[in-house]
Amino acid sequence: MADFSGQAGMRGYFAPSRFEADVYDCETTGEIPKDLDGAFYRLHPDWLYPPNPPDDIPLASDGYMSMFRFRGGVVDYKGRYVRTERFERQMSARRQLYGYYRNPFTDDPGVRDPEHPQRRTTANTTPVAHAGVLYATKEDGLPHRIDPNTLETIGPTDFGGAWKSQAFTAHPKIDPVTGEMAAFGYEASGLCSKDVFLAIFDRTGAVTREWRFEVPYTSMLHDMALTREHVIIPGGGCVTSLERLHEGKTHWAWDSSKPSYYGVIPRDGEAKDIRWFLGPERAVVHTANARTEGSKVILEAPAADANPWPWFEDLAGGQFTAPRNTLRRITFDLDSKDDRCTEEVLFEQPVTSFTRVDDRRLGLPYRYIYVQYFDLDRPSRAGSHPQLRYGANSFGRFDILTGELKSCFGGETHMLQEPSFVPRPGSSEEGDGWLIGTAHNPAEMRAELMIVDAPTMQEVARVILPFRNATQVHGAWFGAGELPLA
Amino acid sequence: MADFSGQAGMRGYFAPSRFEADVYDCETTGEIPKDLDGAFYRLHPDWLYPPNPPDDIPLASDGYMSMFRFRGGVVDYKGRYVRTERFERQMSARRQLYGYYRNPFTDDPGVRDPEHPQRRTTANTTPVAHAGVLYATKEDGLPHRIDPNTLETIGPTDFGGAWKSQAFTAHPKIDPVTGEMAAFGYEASGLCSKDVFLAIFDRTGAVTREWRFEVPYTSMLHDMALTREHVIIPGGGCVTSLERLHEGKTHWAWDSSKPSYYGVIPRDGEAKDIRWFLGPERAVVHTANARTEGSKVILEAPAADANPWPWFEDLAGGQFTAPRNTLRRITFDLDSKDDRCTEEVLFEQPVTSFTRVDDRRLGLPYRYIYVQYFDLDRPSRAGSHPQLRYGANSFGRFDILTGELKSCFGGETHMLQEPSFVPRPGSSEEGDGWLIGTAHNPAEMRAELMIVDAPTMQEVARVILPFRNATQVHGAWFGAGELPLA
Repeated sequence: MADFSGQAGMRGYFAPSRFEADVYDCETTGEIPKDLDGAFYRLHPDWLYPPNPPDDIPLASDGYMSMFRFRGGVVDYKGRYVRTERFERQMSARRQLYGYYRNPFTDDPGVRDPEHPQRRTTANTTPVAHAGVLYATKEDGLPHRIDPNTLETIGPTDFGGAWKSQAFTAHPKIDPVTGEMAAFGYEASGLCSKDVFLAIFDRTGAVTREWRFEVPYTSMLHDMALTREHVIIPGGGCVTSLERLHEGKTHWAWDSSKPSYYGVIPRDGEAKDIRWFLGPERAVVHTANARTEGSKVILEAPAADANPWPWFEDLAGGQFTAPRNTLRRITFDLDSKDDRCTEEVLFEQPVTSFTRVDDRRLGLPYRYIYVQYFDLDRPSRAGSHPQLRYGANSFGRFDILTGELKSCFGGETHMLQEPSFVPRPGSSEEGDGWLIGTAHNPAEMRAELMIVDAPTMQEVARVILPFRNATQVHGAWFGAGELPLA
Repeated sequence: MADFSGQAGMRGYFAPSRFEADVYDCETTGEIPKDLDGAFYRLHPDWLYPPNPPDDIPLASDGYMSMFRFRGGVVDYKGRYVRTERFERQMSARRQLYGYYRNPFTDDPGVRDPEHPQRRTTANTTPVAHAGVLYATKEDGLPHRIDPNTLETIGPTDFGGAWKSQAFTAHPKIDPVTGEMAAFGYEASGLCSKDVFLAIFDRTGAVTREWRFEVPYTSMLHDMALTREHVIIPGGGCVTSLERLHEGKTHWAWDSSKPSYYGVIPRDGEAKDIRWFLGPERAVVHTANARTEGSKVILEAPAADANPWPWFEDLAGGQFTAPRNTLRRITFDLDSKDDRCTEEVLFEQPVTSFTRVDDRRLGLPYRYIYVQYFDLDRPSRAGSHPQLRYGANSFGRFDILTGELKSCFGGETHMLQEPSFVPRPGSSEEGDGWLIGTAHNPAEMRAELMIVDAPTMQEVARVILPFRNATQVHGAWFGAGELPLA
């Protein structure tokens, strides 16, 4: 039975949602652009059963996918749990069976399987589409195929045996020129292993290249970047070990003494050609974009100076305080001998780590980074909610050519989540389109979706849900040409 | 498109819900009785599109059925719109097509059909089950068959042609001794007609007797009562006319000069045997129970001294003020010559009109009336919401033998709706079971379901939904033996 009464922090707006829903012809304000034809998908972590131990972290909670289907100025909404093996086993048992985040040794004996940690994934991180197929992804397991219209879970896939890793990143990257998808899995051969599997899929979804290599030390490899010539995989700071898991702890701790590292892999090279660049203590959780310019590989990303994870213990014993997190340029000089990267702060404005770009410019020269952030000059009453303290009240368009920041405020009682860029049909100019992103509104206990004209950063419409949503992790827009949408 | 921004009073807790939902293994507090095996169904009025004209009344809004399926101490929730012809046509048009409450002359020309007013029903009033079939009912149309497990709408039915009326009451009554169902339709042959069609269905659902007769004047006939020997149909106060409808007004007005009337129909008699008893201005919207004792037919019901409908204009021009509404005994002496009924107030405590009894005693000598009411001695912050002003904060068990009132308080921020009586499996004693009823909680923007031990009137458990619900009209419990529940 589902009794959350003993769960601290699970009341109010951010209590688990725990329901599947359909809204037909959503309530809207403003004018939904009639030429928006596609769907905005989001993945949310949403506990079906209360965590056990009770202090397990939100990253471990069950995956839930929602979609806003846009067509002819009308928006329909659908939300469904991702029917992972874990979800189904818990539904049958009618209780929480799984222990700490990515620690199978803490699971109920009936489901414990440390040799196959991918069986306990919750597929709660990023909606991904490639070759006309929609996936729910999470870096600790295989992607789950999802019907793009019904959101029914078809099941996990190893791409017909072509995927040689227990896990698959939540942030594969698609080359806008070739349609290829680059993806990797880490802890690829088992819990805490240093193994990484990397592969390129062609535009039809077939694996055409693959690599297997080891990282300097096992760490969270959450995102990646792609240039026309290189794959970049940032890591470091987070540490784990089998000893740690056997002690019954959550998967990661933070070790300030560890360098950050960046694997730079030539797309036409072999595993032996990988260069590992080192940097100071950093967390590059997400990337914005990257490019190769001659012998320099340039990554732009939000970077934090210290542990960005409130849930992961600091091995030095420090109390968690949110570190500075700003947009930076990290440069890897392939001609250098010392394998150290250099770093430049692009904007002093603190931001969240949820950056996005116009994906038509992925890996190419580009100009705009979109990210939600907290504009201290705008009134906000949302920050009074403890769970909103890492929140944001504005979407920002950061112009890396001019240094200009254009902003769109979400409302006094709103907490904004990652904006996604939606290209205007028929356009090709970078940044010509819209931003779409969630604005949680605890004051009215309802979630809203903002549609912002990206060139002007003016809000044009809002979709209003009649209920609150669980927080999302990531969202993604896929046009009617990218998925077989009904 | 659904833009409710211009709709006064359609914000906050009682904004239209407009979503279909499933909750698996609902969050609960307390202990759900393990021997509860069945489903609690509710019908809600819930605007799919904003009313047009904007001051149309809630009674006209789209029907939405919800169910709480209880089994083994676990509760699953489901909510679905009733797919009436009206709903489907509006979904296709993506706007409101229907005008004022029960006035087809105010409908969009494309759907206007005054000869068949039943085509515009919203089936939003009472879940009814008979002969193993579940129906969504409303007194202005035919009942809609509903799949008791999926809540899919199968469609309206005239019982294979056996039902000879455009409309069907939302309050048929089932004889607990014979399993027969008595039901009627009024305005049976057309808008504003005085015609009533009354029929008895046997326990298999076949019509075995039928009557056709006229009322003294056309009025709302919302409920009925059944004794072992008689059917009672109360009416009066509300008035209408084709002229009124042609003038573009809502169906009913209130005429204080009109007497109340009560049709008393012998179950083994003919239409010519019907007696019409008259009383003073009254509104008997719902009945509690009735019985025949020799030459006396006794009805017990909440009765209001004046217009109970805030939405229906007073033909005398008075401003609406909620009238006194108390539980009363109305007696019809079949030996009397003047055809006047007599009335006795059973309890001075004001109550809502939503009374229920242990249906195993329907038409028989009985003791307990259950109703929600506002206990002024209990703290309440819910009354500050304007839409809660007709609300209630407690369930009451009124003992008509001893005059005792036993009460169960629903919470400081809660508004309670009609309790339904659920017999304890294996019991036969009147009142041995539970009350189940909705407690809206605007403070947490969520609906809750209270389960109360009926003999002690102590709350034993609560089901907590993760969202608000539209107000219900009526709810009904059907055990696993009454419907083919999965």
